[in-house]
Amino acid sequence: MKRIGIIGGTGYTGGELARLLCVHPGVEIASMTSRQNAGRRVSDVHTYLKGYADLEFTEKVSDDVDLVFVATPHGVAMSEIPGLLEKGIKCIDLSGDYRMHDVPTYEKWYGHTHTDIENLQKAVYGLPELFRDKLKGADLVANPGCYATATILACAPLMKAKLAHRDIFVDAKSGTSGAGMVPSARTHHAFCGESVIPYSVGKHRHTPEIEMALNMFSGIEPEVLFVPNLLPIVRGILSSCYFTLNDGVAAEDVVSAYEKQYKDEKFVHFVDEPSIRATVASNHAQVGVKVFGGKAVAFGAIDNLVKGASGQAVQCMNLMLGLDEAMGLDMPGLGV
Amino acid sequence: MKRIGIIGGTGYTGGELARLLCVHPGVEIASMTSRQNAGRRVSDVHTYLKGYADLEFTEKVSDDVDLVFVATPHGVAMSEIPGLLEKGIKCIDLSGDYRMHDVPTYEKWYGHTHTDIENLQKAVYGLPELFRDKLKGADLVANPGCYATATILACAPLMKAKLAHRDIFVDAKSGTSGAGMVPSARTHHAFCGESVIPYSVGKHRHTPEIEMALNMFSGIEPEVLFVPNLLPIVRGILSSCYFTLNDGVAAEDVVSAYEKQYKDEKFVHFVDEPSIRATVASNHAQVGVKVFGGKAVAFGAIDNLVKGASGQAVQCMNLMLGLDEAMGLDMPGLGV
Amino acid sequence: MKRIGIIGGTGYTGGELARLLCVHPGVEIASMTSRQNAGRRVSDVHTYLKGYADLEFTEKVSDDVDLVFVATPHGVAMSEIPGLLEKGIKCIDLSGDYRMHDVPTYEKWYGHTHTDIENLQKAVYGLPELFRDKLKGADLVANPGCYATATILACAPLMKAKLAHRDIFVDAKSGTSGAGMVPSARTHHAFCGESVIPYSVGKHRHTPEIEMALNMFSGIEPEVLFVPNLLPIVRGILSSCYFTLNDGVAAEDVVSAYEKQYKDEKFVHFVDEPSIRATVASNHAQVGVKVFGGKAVAFGAIDNLVKGASGQAVQCMNLMLGLDEAMGLDMPGLGV
Amino acid sequence: MKRIGIIGGTGYTGGELARLLCVHPGVEIASMTSRQNAGRRVSDVHTYLKGYADLEFTEKVSDDVDLVFVATPHGVAMSEIPGLLEKGIKCIDLSGDYRMHDVPTYEKWYGHTHTDIENLQKAVYGLPELFRDKLKGADLVANPGCYATATILACAPLMKAKLAHRDIFVDAKSGTSGAGMVPSARTHHAFCGESVIPYSVGKHRHTPEIEMALNMFSGIEPEVLFVPNLLPIVRGILSSCYFTLNDGVAAEDVVSAYEKQYKDEKFVHFVDEPSIRATVASNHAQVGVKVFGGKAVAFGAIDNLVKGASGQAVQCMNLMLGLDEAMGLDMPGLGV
Repeated sequence: MKRIGIIGGTGYTGGELARLLCVHPGVEIASMTSRQNAGRRVSDVHTYLKGYADLEFTEKVSDDVDLVFVATPHGVAMSEIPGLLEKGIKCIDLSGDYRMHDVPTYEKWYGHTHTDIENLQKAVYGLPELFRDKLKGADLVANPGCYATATILACAPLMKAKLAHRDIFVDAKSGTSGAGMVPSARTHHAFCGESVIPYSVGKHRHTPEIEMALNMFSGIEPEVLFVPNLLPIVRGILSSCYFTLNDGVAAEDVVSAYEKQYKDEKFVHFVDEPSIRATVASNHAQVGVKVFGGKAVAFGAIDNLVKGASGQAVQCMNLMLGLDEAMGLDMPGLGV
Repeated sequence: MKRIGIIGGTGYTGGELARLLCVHPGVEIASMTSRQNAGRRVSDVHTYLKGYADLEFTEKVSDDVDLVFVATPHGVAMSEIPGLLEKGIKCIDLSGDYRMHDVPTYEKWYGHTHTDIENLQKAVYGLPELFRDKLKGADLVANPGCYATATILACAPLMKAKLAHRDIFVDAKSGTSGAGMVPSARTHHAFCGESVIPYSVGKHRHTPEIEMALNMFSGIEPEVLFVPNLLPIVRGILSSCYFTLNDGVAAEDVVSAYEKQYKDEKFVHFVDEPSIRATVASNHAQVGVKVFGGKAVAFGAIDNLVKGASGQAVQCMNLMLGLDEAMGLDMPGLGV
Repeated sequence: MKRIGIIGGTGYTGGELARLLCVHPGVEIASMTSRQNAGRRVSDVHTYLKGYADLEFTEKVSDDVDLVFVATPHGVAMSEIPGLLEKGIKCIDLSGDYRMHDVPTYEKWYGHTHTDIENLQKAVYGLPELFRDKLKGADLVANPGCYATATILACAPLMKAKLAHRDIFVDAKSGTSGAGMVPSARTHHAFCGESVIPYSVGKHRHTPEIEMALNMFSGIEPEVLFVPNLLPIVRGILSSCYFTLNDGVAAEDVVSAYEKQYKDEKFVHFVDEPSIRATVASNHAQVGVKVFGGKAVAFGAIDNLVKGASGQAVQCMNLMLGLDEAMGLDMPGLGV
Repeated sequence: MKRIGIIGGTGYTGGELARLLCVHPGVEIASMTSRQNAGRRVSDVHTYLKGYADLEFTEKVSDDVDLVFVATPHGVAMSEIPGLLEKGIKCIDLSGDYRMHDVPTYEKWYGHTHTDIENLQKAVYGLPELFRDKLKGADLVANPGCYATATILACAPLMKAKLAHRDIFVDAKSGTSGAGMVPSARTHHAFCGESVIPYSVGKHRHTPEIEMALNMFSGIEPEVLFVPNLLPIVRGILSSCYFTLNDGVAAEDVVSAYEKQYKDEKFVHFVDEPSIRATVASNHAQVGVKVFGGKAVAFGAIDNLVKGASGQAVQCMNLMLGLDEAMGLDMPGLGV
């Protein structure tokens, strides 16, 4: 049994990591930190974990672990991770700190200097379906953003096969759990509960991440206009990606690019009608595409807290630790 | 045209007052205050009021008004209202400050001393269907709570006709707008959006208000166990009230008590299946009752922001100012 | 008082027409039909109209009316309207029967022959903000589709000013009331209540309607990929429209096109952040636009049952009958 | 590996059984029937089961199984089960056919004659926390209703300890998946999506089931007024149960009855604030109680499709087949 630490265990991604790891057959949660809840039992804070995660939150993560998940707000991981790596502890960062390989791009979109540029450039982008080989045995993984995961999975086959222009319009819709557990005006139910709310239009930090990952994978430099929308659901993302196809590209070419890309994947399924509900509570993603004349729309559906965050992080962990990639994640979505 | 002031115009009840008054044919909004938004146009804060309420928020309410609505948090109105009344300005308080006539009860449930006991005892409880005569020409009205309105309307006929025991179990369900516009852990969408959440069980401040109003109206002293629940909808309350009938009371007796009570009311309707949607965006209430052996359940449905707050306050204003009681409110609910 | 008939009064648009007309100061509902509910009182079917619309549903519409709204499923209006027009009764069709001026386009998208081609070519497309002059005194108006209204209002200024390419990607999101009152697998709450569901991708009948209206208004022939999505809300549409700008077009050019187009409109507002909730229960629309490099996204928000159906039909009626355009509609949206 | 059949695999409970059994380590799904989908792959109908349940639906269930789940509408199971039992196949009925031991009560509430009275009287009521011993090795189990499960778990300790009067008012709230997959007027999103809808008030078939099970467990004959409400959520039930306590009963007595009842249970937890979300996607239940003077309210929260249907059926299956009771069910709820 590998021993696992979680830094930042109070929030939604921390709780979701604990939910997945407490029944994972290859690891055990050895240490879980929380500034505000140190000294309380994890299952007194996350009551749904009663009987599953009854350890106490601590202030600092134990050294006696094989791998640490860092589930803190942006900007915190870069001060924790260098020390952990030096001690030989593998790290998976669920924040945005290590996602951009390019320092100026990081600093432009995140608005402050990066203090761990050395590791930034070594970090592997943790999307196993596109970068599996690099993840095996990696020491530091930057776990993708939730919107980025849904969008990249939807766009990658079309980009890789070079079937479309580099300009992509992305209209992404997310459940409110993607905004984290801190209440805000936007996630106040009376504000968002009977609406759909575009926000950070053209300015969301997942934009450069999507462009970088698609570029690494396909060699094309996409230009993305990314529009996230807050949906009045709790879990789930649907990312709808609009393309102009290259001249002469037929619908069959497009379909076959998707089939080829995902036919052997455990967790990513090319389907006719991707559905959020099919993925909820699971690490599965559903991807689809429709072609009309010279235009195409590709869809990616995931559970933002699982494949869009903690589940994907566990999938990366399995690869980093040499475990079976699907261990602890091998169950279907809720469907209903 | 009567001139109206609103103290506390940023919140939901303040905005809803402006929404109703800006198209009311007998009054005009002369002054609207907001500490945080003073100097901004009302319609820049409440964008849906563009073209309807383009005056500027001020720090203090104008003296040059006939009536002031006080839509502030509990505890504020009692420091504003004495001065207004002295100037001859009529007042409607939408907070809880003037709802309890009994000082010890107020202080027990609200947890602090009342600083305007004189006016407390003069304030009229603003439920027109039960206390219409006292409201005509009143100077100070305590506008009922949202839960209290739905519950009292559902229970009053049964109490008045002395058909049931004094013990009432009330299971009330409210949309999230009833909690106001300040974000909180409970109204965070990811927390409440796919759930129904009982809170303040047995301790909610509308409990003594319900008991007091039913006692004033019926002479019976009810004992209420009041359980409010947060519903994942924006507007609307359904209050379900459980009774043990007195021996020998038949279903027909119960039905006829309700028919008699509400047959001439404009805004309260005795129907077979009360529905929140039938009342939303209107000042209408629907009330229903079912009898099974010696037990009965009565339902009251309203829009918490209209009949449960600002609409009822406008209805009271009409009575206080000698206008037609339904003026500015005479339109049906949305239904869908 | 003008006398009004409604054919098809059981459904959502029929009920919404009644809700608006029963408090309209210039008209009265003289006749309302329903095959399944003939003989019942309107307010026994639509209980929220109790006290407002207590007439009885009939099988056939009365001849003694000035104007008839036809709120029936697609394909029915074309058999009713010729006879009404012959009797000198003005007609507003809320279905799709008279929206396409081009017969082959109609027959391609609707899948059957049109049996009233003569009137089809005379019908005025009822979007007052774009085609007001033609509506004044018109005898037959084709009321726009709900998605079409939101989308056309969002795109029109950009097209008219010839600032963007003709290719438009439209990602539109609608509340479930837009699907009408007949239950279906897609609108079953357990299916759609915690999801967002793209449907009729690239094949929705509002596609050619959007293209036709934008072409009539701007002279440009747009090519639209239209993707409707079912949202888990009851009322409201947000249409998000993606454009590639022409070379050299600046953000200011775009903004000024919108300001110019809508600055004098009563019901269409150019705002920074269009919001469904600001429009709900009202005839108002909010439109916005954002520019990023050579790309733009325009938003249109409406209540699908009001500005997207029955409210816009009343607005058209006012113009057709020579009444004030805003009569009976002049109130703000709910906001909350 | 035990071999399992499912009769009625298209509906929500059938799909949910497949979702749970496809990853259950002690059994395999050998046969799954569907009249309308015979010949199609299970995972083509329930797309979320792709890779997990790729067998084909058949018309008839295979004989070569150890246990069959019957997930058909009420009235069907009683024609299937006698034949299966004769062949030595154990049966779990998820419909209401075998829940009432008393034939007249069955016929009164279900409205037709029972055609398998012999087995009706042998069937064990499948609530493991109350009737565990009878379930071990049982041949025929009647799986409890969803509302009944939440309500009985909430009321049982109070009844068993004889602390309250026999009259109970139950206000239960259910997500829409409890109504099954067939669309109806009540589950149409535009009707129920922004409301809470009481239905079958005092007439719901779970009423006699609750009374029977509580009587079997406690010896008291409760009289229940049961009011179910449709909630605008997909999964989850909260049952709120109102009691009058016997004279002299203290809050501590009540609390200790609950603690004692559930302290060793894997799936039922006595907590301060029971939460639907803590149980969703799991077989866990949360139960709580609050006392005020001589009144009490007890709460029971479950996922209606898991502990309220298919999960509880799997728990019963484990007991019937001699497997570990928690096998295949041992994971926490979603929490968020």
